[in-house]
Amino acid sequence: MKALVYHGPGSKAWEDVPDAAVQEATDVVVRVDTTTICGTDLHILLGDVAAVTDGRVLGHEAVGTVTEVGDAVKGFSVGDRVLVPAITKCGRCEYCQRGMPSHCQTVGGIGWIFGHLIDGTQAEYVRVPYADTSLYAVPDNVTNEQAIFLADSLPTGYEVGVLAGEVRPGHTVAVVGAGAVGLSAILTTGLWGASKVIAVDTNKFRLTKALDFGATDAIEAGPNTAEDVLAMTDGLGVDVSIEAVGYPETLRTAASLVRPGGTIANIGVHGVPVELPMQEMWIHNVKLTMGLVDTVSIPTLLKMVGSGRIPAEKMGTHTFGVGEIDEAYDVFKNAAANEALKVVINA
Amino acid sequence: MKALVYHGPGSKAWEDVPDAAVQEATDVVVRVDTTTICGTDLHILLGDVAAVTDGRVLGHEAVGTVTEVGDAVKGFSVGDRVLVPAITKCGRCEYCQRGMPSHCQTVGGIGWIFGHLIDGTQAEYVRVPYADTSLYAVPDNVTNEQAIFLADSLPTGYEVGVLAGEVRPGHTVAVVGAGAVGLSAILTTGLWGASKVIAVDTNKFRLTKALDFGATDAIEAGPNTAEDVLAMTDGLGVDVSIEAVGYPETLRTAASLVRPGGTIANIGVHGVPVELPMQEMWIHNVKLTMGLVDTVSIPTLLKMVGSGRIPAEKMGTHTFGVGEIDEAYDVFKNAAANEALKVVINA
Amino acid sequence: MKALVYHGPGSKAWEDVPDAAVQEATDVVVRVDTTTICGTDLHILLGDVAAVTDGRVLGHEAVGTVTEVGDAVKGFSVGDRVLVPAITKCGRCEYCQRGMPSHCQTVGGIGWIFGHLIDGTQAEYVRVPYADTSLYAVPDNVTNEQAIFLADSLPTGYEVGVLAGEVRPGHTVAVVGAGAVGLSAILTTGLWGASKVIAVDTNKFRLTKALDFGATDAIEAGPNTAEDVLAMTDGLGVDVSIEAVGYPETLRTAASLVRPGGTIANIGVHGVPVELPMQEMWIHNVKLTMGLVDTVSIPTLLKMVGSGRIPAEKMGTHTFGVGEIDEAYDVFKNAAANEALKVVINA
Amino acid sequence: MKALVYHGPGSKAWEDVPDAAVQEATDVVVRVDTTTICGTDLHILLGDVAAVTDGRVLGHEAVGTVTEVGDAVKGFSVGDRVLVPAITKCGRCEYCQRGMPSHCQTVGGIGWIFGHLIDGTQAEYVRVPYADTSLYAVPDNVTNEQAIFLADSLPTGYEVGVLAGEVRPGHTVAVVGAGAVGLSAILTTGLWGASKVIAVDTNKFRLTKALDFGATDAIEAGPNTAEDVLAMTDGLGVDVSIEAVGYPETLRTAASLVRPGGTIANIGVHGVPVELPMQEMWIHNVKLTMGLVDTVSIPTLLKMVGSGRIPAEKMGTHTFGVGEIDEAYDVFKNAAANEALKVVINA
Repeated sequence: MKALVYHGPGSKAWEDVPDAAVQEATDVVVRVDTTTICGTDLHILLGDVAAVTDGRVLGHEAVGTVTEVGDAVKGFSVGDRVLVPAITKCGRCEYCQRGMPSHCQTVGGIGWIFGHLIDGTQAEYVRVPYADTSLYAVPDNVTNEQAIFLADSLPTGYEVGVLAGEVRPGHTVAVVGAGAVGLSAILTTGLWGASKVIAVDTNKFRLTKALDFGATDAIEAGPNTAEDVLAMTDGLGVDVSIEAVGYPETLRTAASLVRPGGTIANIGVHGVPVELPMQEMWIHNVKLTMGLVDTVSIPTLLKMVGSGRIPAEKMGTHTFGVGEIDEAYDVFKNAAANEALKVVINA
Repeated sequence: MKALVYHGPGSKAWEDVPDAAVQEATDVVVRVDTTTICGTDLHILLGDVAAVTDGRVLGHEAVGTVTEVGDAVKGFSVGDRVLVPAITKCGRCEYCQRGMPSHCQTVGGIGWIFGHLIDGTQAEYVRVPYADTSLYAVPDNVTNEQAIFLADSLPTGYEVGVLAGEVRPGHTVAVVGAGAVGLSAILTTGLWGASKVIAVDTNKFRLTKALDFGATDAIEAGPNTAEDVLAMTDGLGVDVSIEAVGYPETLRTAASLVRPGGTIANIGVHGVPVELPMQEMWIHNVKLTMGLVDTVSIPTLLKMVGSGRIPAEKMGTHTFGVGEIDEAYDVFKNAAANEALKVVINA
Repeated sequence: MKALVYHGPGSKAWEDVPDAAVQEATDVVVRVDTTTICGTDLHILLGDVAAVTDGRVLGHEAVGTVTEVGDAVKGFSVGDRVLVPAITKCGRCEYCQRGMPSHCQTVGGIGWIFGHLIDGTQAEYVRVPYADTSLYAVPDNVTNEQAIFLADSLPTGYEVGVLAGEVRPGHTVAVVGAGAVGLSAILTTGLWGASKVIAVDTNKFRLTKALDFGATDAIEAGPNTAEDVLAMTDGLGVDVSIEAVGYPETLRTAASLVRPGGTIANIGVHGVPVELPMQEMWIHNVKLTMGLVDTVSIPTLLKMVGSGRIPAEKMGTHTFGVGEIDEAYDVFKNAAANEALKVVINA
Repeated sequence: MKALVYHGPGSKAWEDVPDAAVQEATDVVVRVDTTTICGTDLHILLGDVAAVTDGRVLGHEAVGTVTEVGDAVKGFSVGDRVLVPAITKCGRCEYCQRGMPSHCQTVGGIGWIFGHLIDGTQAEYVRVPYADTSLYAVPDNVTNEQAIFLADSLPTGYEVGVLAGEVRPGHTVAVVGAGAVGLSAILTTGLWGASKVIAVDTNKFRLTKALDFGATDAIEAGPNTAEDVLAMTDGLGVDVSIEAVGYPETLRTAASLVRPGGTIANIGVHGVPVELPMQEMWIHNVKLTMGLVDTVSIPTLLKMVGSGRIPAEKMGTHTFGVGEIDEAYDVFKNAAANEALKVVINA
């Protein structure tokens, strides 16, 4: 079969690899019908993720069709249309049992293994371990072009932003960074009744998208961001401030927007230490949350997408055939310039 | 009347001041029978708290007797034995209504006003604003020498450490810093069923006290602290890591002890920014909490002290008459050297 | 001044009474600009509420203007436009401090005192005790005709139905009884992301309104109700089943619709005991909740009404001048026949 | 192998049956080293549980040793010492994923299948389906005579009583019925910091045991029970009232003891409908909870037993060899008369 293989920093190729096959009784093989690219894939190509080595098939998001089933698998059959999420769950370790498979102790100490510790989804087929506890059936009222964003980006914005941030009815929310993940948070704040959602970004295209995705206000980031947001929130700041970029200064900006008693929900992937003004923050009764997605919200999100309340398909701005995967990477690499959010890659 | 008056950095005097008196219909005056000294009072004397100006009566903790009652006060009468907590609550602002009077918007934007924005409790008498919503009656089965620690230190350890940290049955807990506030956290972890409580400090006296206050393990802080604690907790770390010192390195130590999915509860008062290793922490699904005490746990703590489950009196290691308040400050200033936790000052 | 006075079962009169006046330092007097009638007022007129005696001014809902202010009141001034909620809160008893003023121990063991234990709001003026902790300022972006329903019916549906029932994103909800309170629950399920809301009633007008208020499905109540609802919910039933009628059979219907692990939220006011099939229910891991409204959700609801997300004005189907209050009662008494939900009575 | 086989109402025999063996790749076989008898087993013998048919091996509690392992099992090996809990979990259905395997949709719509829908644990060996997600390793610091009570009775009292009842620090708790399950609730209220625990029973032996297990007060049940309990709780009643009997009158007693805002946690297995005074209860803002145990608290309870905080072994009052299982049933059938709580049956 064909797959996109990593060959060290800056190097990847769509090439022949051995066919994906069931190895354990709890595996299935899925034919990849739709996949996408994640910001993490770009980091891998920069050589930032040491655990990814030469020869690894990339990608951790897919919608597809089951083609082979291990003997111990009970919940899925050949022909089932399924969502392959970014996180694999054994279902029995302490972390899986408490709903936190992001730290599944069985599959690798971390639940993200596709395109990282095992071969991934940017391929014609993918082997899925612990299929019974990891895969989700896709209902008829959800398309591939919607479901694909439930593999990672939408649950990330929702779980690490909205859920960890504890958005509640009547709350004001700021989202610093309106890329794919920030927009995913914006798209799902309504599930918890936010009354005001303020998007903050430097890019006008993204701010326009933010308003389309449900933000009530859009602010161009700058030296007066904190002042502007406080002026919109009784002078005290927002209840929940979501960081969706991953730099020291954006996290400090997010921290500067939150009112006493509020939550700063960090979604951004950080590469360096961050200095926080604890001498001011300690007295404010705030919380700073952070983490990798668990993808356990997928059943809820599938219901909300299926019932029309979450227009997930809006995340996909560009569509490619799998033969054009290099072009898809090029567009996504310069997402802001290309007015791209997420790309859809169909088989 | 006599009171301990602040006269600028390094200077204080037990001297004559105008009598405390009811000024608003919602005030009462309390005769101070027992008071104590807080680490914050030491910071004030160093000149670290700009809002405290020359002439201010110090202190924010007292047990006493009501001597005068404003016209609108319904819940207290002359002669009542009461606890004056560190936090004053109007009872009607958004923060008071949600149980977070630490940020009461009415009394000053912050609920801590005694010995800070108004005259305090290290005096013969003290005026208490918003008495109905701020004071607590002391039941007969709780002594002054127990109740005095419920004014600030015990609720601080409990609320900002144990409650914010979300200690739950079966949890492992680390407490970095076994001074009065860290020990208060240790003393109250049992209310939520912690199974293992590890005290970390550099001082042997405090580590001995920690074991006496309910810690199951005591570790001398050093370069191997994280390694030692991880070895005691399946290699993953504790569920809740409580910081009770207030320095960058102790907060980083606390952060290094927590397992994925756990909470770092910062109680320490910080004076400088803190650099956190967000490049490692972001993926660990941890929370960092912080804040000023609300003192809303006082009714619960009074019940637990009264029923004998919380031996609050153990916090008081040294007792003084109010005439010896200078000596009390001297002992408390060098708490570790004097094997002191908290001092009791009786009228 | 004029007021609607109760004179025993079946008898009421709009007549002269002594002027409302400040009696305690914590009181204010409010000129009633808008009021309404509650189902409870009808029960009182039937003689069902023993505590209401001859001479009592009726009504417990009002929007008005402050005309007199007690000496201890800090938060309100003459001229302020305010919402007088059904519940009065002292702000300092155990129940008020935990956000459950429905059982305020100070004002009467129960927080509902207007038109019950003290004179009420169906009058030109009303005395409001504990004004600082009980009244709410009405923002400019909320009209009297919206705010009046936040005094009781909307918070009742929201707090006793949606909040007590713990509606969460993706949930299915059934509401048995689509009168004013059932519709209030329906109107607010969206704040918590319900994915399917099934209204059950015998009246077609109400079912039509239910769809207009946000229900996704409307079912005519009958012998197959449980079968119908289960067919719509994977055969297991709804996550949250809200009872908004108050009869044994409607509560049993609500109980029959809930899936294992779900909640039955009883809003109905019951007059007789209810036999529940505990021999079937015990094993289903369900909860049955019930209670009087606290009205503590009013700040949240004001924000959601002001931002346009909750069209509260839709509850008012008929408008009267205060001189037509008898006619208003007649219309409301036969609400279903008159296609009435709530009446608005303006001064 | 030998096993205790049900042969219709009133009839059981310790007799030869086919050997337990792995049937599915996810099964293991466990040699039963220790088992016990549950009240439910007595109900089955009375013919009350229609799903249990002639030929079924009884019992749903065991501690034992793994002797055979299916191909897909990863977490357990031959020789492992394990706890076989009353509930079997597939680990992947909606209910298992939300921590409510009591209603596992895969194993039978209900998680209790041993000695009910499949052969049970009162046998020399037992086949355990879904072993990876259902079994628990028993740590070295927990004996068989302690662990056996974590299979059902202790988690039932804890989860269905203490957890569902939401006991919190400072709470007052009443437990109506001090048999094995009521005592299990009493034994675990301390994990959540209850300040007063009142046992109510008609049997003096059980009341004595209740005090030994951690109750602060013991009351002989009678016509004045409610009056007595209210007198001990400020006249308002307890925060949490736990029912551990299963009759209409004991549930009504439990309901009469709870204060406004409290919880009635029903643990009892009911056989007939129960009439509740909803005309009084509706206004009290109380919750009534009920359900089958999930056994998901076993990891927490193992830690607390291992650390010495929960003396689980106290539940076992009588010990038998497996050859004496008939005698064990006779003793347990007349538990009160024999001053028995639970029996321990060792291989």
